[in-house]
Amino acid sequence: MTRVLYELSGRDESLRFSPYCWRVRYALAHKGLDVETRPWHFTDKPALAFADHDKVPVLVDGDEVVTDSYAILRYLDRAYPEAPLLGEPLADARGRFFKYYAERALAPAMMRTIIMDLFNAVHPDDRAYFRESREKRFGRTLEEFHSPAKGLAQLDAALAPLRGRLEEVDFLDGEAAAGADYLVFGFFMWARCVSSADLVSNADPVHAWVERMLDLHDGLGRRATRVTDIEGAYR
Amino acid sequence: MTRVLYELSGRDESLRFSPYCWRVRYALAHKGLDVETRPWHFTDKPALAFADHDKVPVLVDGDEVVTDSYAILRYLDRAYPEAPLLGEPLADARGRFFKYYAERALAPAMMRTIIMDLFNAVHPDDRAYFRESREKRFGRTLEEFHSPAKGLAQLDAALAPLRGRLEEVDFLDGEAAAGADYLVFGFFMWARCVSSADLVSNADPVHAWVERMLDLHDGLGRRATRVTDIEGAYR
Repeated sequence: MTRVLYELSGRDESLRFSPYCWRVRYALAHKGLDVETRPWHFTDKPALAFADHDKVPVLVDGDEVVTDSYAILRYLDRAYPEAPLLGEPLADARGRFFKYYAERALAPAMMRTIIMDLFNAVHPDDRAYFRESREKRFGRTLEEFHSPAKGLAQLDAALAPLRGRLEEVDFLDGEAAAGADYLVFGFFMWARCVSSADLVSNADPVHAWVERMLDLHDGLGRRATRVTDIEGAYR
Repeated sequence: MTRVLYELSGRDESLRFSPYCWRVRYALAHKGLDVETRPWHFTDKPALAFADHDKVPVLVDGDEVVTDSYAILRYLDRAYPEAPLLGEPLADARGRFFKYYAERALAPAMMRTIIMDLFNAVHPDDRAYFRESREKRFGRTLEEFHSPAKGLAQLDAALAPLRGRLEEVDFLDGEAAAGADYLVFGFFMWARCVSSADLVSNADPVHAWVERMLDLHDGLGRRATRVTDIEGAYR
């Protein structure tokens, strides 16, 4: 049985920077499951028609086709109950909050900081789509939206609860990382893969957690291709 | 066996506004446990000497003396396992994040909005202590710190993850409220008891959740004395 994950890729096929796909990569590694990844880019909608979906991640696991990163984590817990990611209902209910915390508090702050890096990183065929869809969402040009000063200040404020928790323990889910860590960390991988911006200062407990997360699962995150690894790709 | 909770009270003995004590009041109601509450104010340190502690909440449950709101919720789950508040280890680990989210993201934003209301609400014997300790913490006078415009804008941003979650479900912990809801809601009770400020607009999903929380446990929160109920107490 082949397990396949469709992943967003950028200007180079090895550049995989979707925060949602990184959640799934970590979740699969957490379960000890091998996966073959297949590059996909935003405007390649036909390649996902089989899943009746237009976004990645899409996981194909034998006969199962699962879309949406959170749904994939839940699917993995059902199909492979060892080493829970989201856990039983009360833990899962709280897991949802980490999803929204990452997507609505951290991501917008990071986005303001790395938007031009993201634009630089996308597949050449996606550039027009990326600019148009994001400018429509932001109500201004990418260049106008881009503001590391505002983004980093906003991120610093948004990180306060994460910082509080990581002052007392190594991972959000306790002594070992699990679903909550992956739901949040996906966005740190997003920024890391496309940008050389320092989002968090070295003395921050969040920085130490990022380093631990990069080391997990044989350095899964640390080994990932960054745009700075690709010759001539980073301005 | 008498169960006693030492609670912060204000200029009127019936005015109970500590966010940490409200967590515990809701937690006790969640477990269906009766409690006798005893008013305490900041500078009445000797009254808590028996607990070797200088802050409320302090719960005395038979021979057990438990301090710190989170520790009290954990104690209640151990002593009364029915209707879990924090739940098993993974759910509890995530519960800790709600503690920090409430204390480090929501509370500072609310504080800027209600600081003068808090100062008005404290016990007369606590006024000098309150001003001195808070001015030291903020590095400026209460009057300088007070800024509803900044506080409400900061709160609006900080509520984004809560809003996301409450768009999909009635309570943070799912179909029914539990520990995560109480950990966060305590701060809404804090603001409600001392201030008439509208923190959240009526159309916000957070507003609907606040209304549901006020109704829980026979209207526990809704029945609480507010400073506006005390004749001549609110400017």
